[in-house]
Amino acid sequence: MRRAAVGVSALRGKLLIPPRSGSTITSAIYHHNAWFHSKSRDSSEALGTPAKLPDAELIPSRPSHQRVTINDILERRAKAGKLDAGTAAASDSDMFKGPQAGKLKSQRWDHHLSEEARVREPCVLKQAAKHLKKPGLISLGGGLPCAEYFPFESLSMKVPRSPHFSEEATRTSGDTLHIGKYDVSQTEDAVYDLSIALNYGQATGSAQVIRFVTEHTELVCNPPYADWRCILTVGSTGALEQAFRMLFDSNRGDSLLTEEYSFSTALETAIPLGINVFGVKMDEQGLLPESMDEMLANWDSSHKEGGARKPHVLYTVPSGQNPTGATQGEQRRRDIYKVAQKYDVYIIEDEPYYFLQMEPYSNNGAVAISSPSPTPTPPPQTVDSFLSTLIPTLLSMDTDGRVMRMDSLSKVVVPGSRLGWITASAQMVERYQRHAEVCNQGPSGFSQVILHKLLDEHWGHDGYLRWLMNLRLEYTARRDVMLAACEKYLPQEIVSWTPPVAGMFHWLKVNHALHPDASSKDILTIEEEIFNSCIEKGVLVGRGSWFRAERDSNTPPADMFFRATFAAATPTNMTEAIRRFGEAVKESYRIQ
Amino acid sequence: MRRAAVGVSALRGKLLIPPRSGSTITSAIYHHNAWFHSKSRDSSEALGTPAKLPDAELIPSRPSHQRVTINDILERRAKAGKLDAGTAAASDSDMFKGPQAGKLKSQRWDHHLSEEARVREPCVLKQAAKHLKKPGLISLGGGLPCAEYFPFESLSMKVPRSPHFSEEATRTSGDTLHIGKYDVSQTEDAVYDLSIALNYGQATGSAQVIRFVTEHTELVCNPPYADWRCILTVGSTGALEQAFRMLFDSNRGDSLLTEEYSFSTALETAIPLGINVFGVKMDEQGLLPESMDEMLANWDSSHKEGGARKPHVLYTVPSGQNPTGATQGEQRRRDIYKVAQKYDVYIIEDEPYYFLQMEPYSNNGAVAISSPSPTPTPPPQTVDSFLSTLIPTLLSMDTDGRVMRMDSLSKVVVPGSRLGWITASAQMVERYQRHAEVCNQGPSGFSQVILHKLLDEHWGHDGYLRWLMNLRLEYTARRDVMLAACEKYLPQEIVSWTPPVAGMFHWLKVNHALHPDASSKDILTIEEEIFNSCIEKGVLVGRGSWFRAERDSNTPPADMFFRATFAAATPTNMTEAIRRFGEAVKESYRIQ
Repeated sequence: MRRAAVGVSALRGKLLIPPRSGSTITSAIYHHNAWFHSKSRDSSEALGTPAKLPDAELIPSRPSHQRVTINDILERRAKAGKLDAGTAAASDSDMFKGPQAGKLKSQRWDHHLSEEARVREPCVLKQAAKHLKKPGLISLGGGLPCAEYFPFESLSMKVPRSPHFSEEATRTSGDTLHIGKYDVSQTEDAVYDLSIALNYGQATGSAQVIRFVTEHTELVCNPPYADWRCILTVGSTGALEQAFRMLFDSNRGDSLLTEEYSFSTALETAIPLGINVFGVKMDEQGLLPESMDEMLANWDSSHKEGGARKPHVLYTVPSGQNPTGATQGEQRRRDIYKVAQKYDVYIIEDEPYYFLQMEPYSNNGAVAISSPSPTPTPPPQTVDSFLSTLIPTLLSMDTDGRVMRMDSLSKVVVPGSRLGWITASAQMVERYQRHAEVCNQGPSGFSQVILHKLLDEHWGHDGYLRWLMNLRLEYTARRDVMLAACEKYLPQEIVSWTPPVAGMFHWLKVNHALHPDASSKDILTIEEEIFNSCIEKGVLVGRGSWFRAERDSNTPPADMFFRATFAAATPTNMTEAIRRFGEAVKESYRIQ
Repeated sequence: MRRAAVGVSALRGKLLIPPRSGSTITSAIYHHNAWFHSKSRDSSEALGTPAKLPDAELIPSRPSHQRVTINDILERRAKAGKLDAGTAAASDSDMFKGPQAGKLKSQRWDHHLSEEARVREPCVLKQAAKHLKKPGLISLGGGLPCAEYFPFESLSMKVPRSPHFSEEATRTSGDTLHIGKYDVSQTEDAVYDLSIALNYGQATGSAQVIRFVTEHTELVCNPPYADWRCILTVGSTGALEQAFRMLFDSNRGDSLLTEEYSFSTALETAIPLGINVFGVKMDEQGLLPESMDEMLANWDSSHKEGGARKPHVLYTVPSGQNPTGATQGEQRRRDIYKVAQKYDVYIIEDEPYYFLQMEPYSNNGAVAISSPSPTPTPPPQTVDSFLSTLIPTLLSMDTDGRVMRMDSLSKVVVPGSRLGWITASAQMVERYQRHAEVCNQGPSGFSQVILHKLLDEHWGHDGYLRWLMNLRLEYTARRDVMLAACEKYLPQEIVSWTPPVAGMFHWLKVNHALHPDASSKDILTIEEEIFNSCIEKGVLVGRGSWFRAERDSNTPPADMFFRATFAAATPTNMTEAIRRFGEAVKESYRIQ
């Protein structure tokens, strides 16, 4: 296989894009313009060697609005030649993206950055790695241990063969994949091995995995600005903390907007950083753009506790929102984006449940229903039709580069990988990287090499998307079990819900006004009584008040909610649990 | 095998220790006083179940100053019975420590904590997990995916069998270890499997790995206060950042003491957090306690830039310090600890190179030497003798609980695991955990289960210590190659050094006063010229000025240094690299 290489001029050609007025093309885009070639086992020689670039000149240009296909990516890889990325090789998404012709560059976000983020400088030792490109240079510079002392000769793993994803099929006909310590130097086609993955790496993550997530992001989102990049994270919880530290400055009285009911861990991340959190009203499609507009239009810091500054960041979970299960439709997303543009708001798009967009709910459970169920449309059979049924992401509408999208493997592969990625403008990714270098240093090498082996080498983009297609049907079935149980066991004159179309959560509204003690007991009191009664009866659900964005607000909640997940329990247990919840509600409301 | 269990009263008995005057026994120690037993595949049931406790009553009490042996630990495990720790089981070191009779509790460090650390509260969803102990409860609470959807049926790995650790021996006679998805429910002795490791876990790390590192810390350090605990980290770089955020408050003008030449990444972590960094003078044993005493005795904030507050934290690398290679002897450590006590200074003990304590250098290289080499003492042959030759750690002297020790697997197993641990008082570990819960959430499950399999199940404590004994001899050999090359190729009238006794780094002092241009060119200028000439000749070394603690100081450095690592290059390359460095120095000094 040809090993492709590209010089500065070709790379410039690839990225020659009309600069936005007032913006300059940063040198960061072009700094990987040289490399040297080493396959030595002497890890001092390979450290920091930039990964080799695919050959941009061979990639045909195509209109930027057109969807990128898996075939485009396969062709691009074939033309670029074998990836050559050794120990701690530097890489970025620009090495793996298609042509961005016709797209503008991202806006700059300097005015939104915290002091902490602004003053970060590159690691002096990592900067020194630039000298490693000199042919024949021997490094006594970085303290990288020699792979000779890694006590792992090889790893193997038994995994499903696409599209036979069930546990049973994996046991009987799954494939065993092998990762050796020196595969790259000993095997023709290998691009990644234990000697590379288990040594120190770049805080961006390895070139091998950056390539995959960049391509995947292009397939799914194809961001409409030119200088977008991906960087690996240690999962979205950690990524969110880093993003908050990048964007919020407690000495500036900074504020965050989010859904009025929001992911409790996100709130718990924000509060110790001194961030003022404000909740935007929601409906069954989540955050209401008109409510966001109104809040921002009428913001008056002097009337806010601690003089909270007008929010400059929105944190939102557009699909299968946690805790409400709400999913923003395409128009809703466009409207939210427009309000963000109007008020110079930067958006953190947290999408762990994006690929858990389920089939429409058709009341075809085991429960008697009042109206006949509509004939269900069959689920998408091809990867292309699957991709086209997904609601467009905020990133896919992001002409300004104002979105930081967070992707996670926790809900769709395994949480224990502690590996995800963000996509944002080169400026934001570079600041994120500077932080990661003095923080987690990127995800585990075991996670990276195992996921590369499965997702990239074994399944490829097609197989991974088929895995996701399979998973959404599994979650559809689980959701249907829960909804059927709700229809059967909950008093619908008191408890109401919208069938979730994505995610893992079902959000149950319990009508406080109808409670016999409504006049003497407030919502929080009755919520607590029902919660305790649930525990007593043997079911744990989430209390709505745990998720209030303005948790310490003096305003009592307007409605009573409980959150139930259909991700974890077996169907039988889930049904029994909902029955118990129904009993607790009925007892509290004194109905039979 | 018996499954052990212990109730509140037994646990209280185990930890009944004289409370320090003014301190109270916190409830945190006792909060794991109940559990329930689940082996269901329904991950909702297992979430948050506390790991089972070993039975304290069966463990014989022993004087606290006595070294704990591997046999003690094996007996303790045998008596405690099989560890039962399912998905996201809560655990802490107190479950696995021996009796702490006769030891006092740690002092409290509230006055040293940052505002950010003080206000952290436990995650509301993790708090709810306490209800999971109720027998028969079904959880619709946490959004944990079902292990059925984890696309990994099993992992295998080929690793060395102790004590045959070489790559060659591993290839020919290594062992293949197997980790299945449901080993715990399907195999009698298994305590950990993929269904547990790859799901969400606690931010502490898994009970399985906490047990191992707690026992290992007891073998090596046996801290002399009662309420010490271990918590896993994502490596010491990330742990240091978390520790800094816990201890430093930029609004308080906080300051840090460290060696005058210090790990550059540590400095780069501190600076964006607004920490004022001050360097303490060093000799060949590292940090000088009398210099630290003098600085603290005469501290006057009004004379410091930005009104820097008197330092309340010391960051030190006692063994094989980066960059100087200096190693503090036992008395030096005791003296530093005393100064810290005198001025109420908290100590961060960063020890990535602790187990790379090498054999004494005996000038037995291939080079002609002036004095006859002493007959070398043979290296320790048993694990006990190895442990007794190690210089005692600061943690082992820490009667106050004022030390946070950072252990890392990067230099002794693989850097790519991104897994290490800290040991500190229960108070500090609890604050660290609260941060980790909204940050990295602990290390990768792949890393945890793979390292558990190798270190705990396969090698055990004995095998792991033998691995370390082998590794230190490998590093001894590498160091000897570098020293022999230095003796052969460096002009010793200009370049001087102390043979390092630990770590990966060799620190070369180049006498500026003897430079022909000393009167017209300052140290930084000549240092830069030599560095550039080195690159020209094909060797990368570290410039001493990169590591200055007070990097932006107006005071020029007093001496000129270069750092060279003997960890990475092959012996041949290392020798050639030192020859090139010698050429660069000789050219600069215009000698032949």
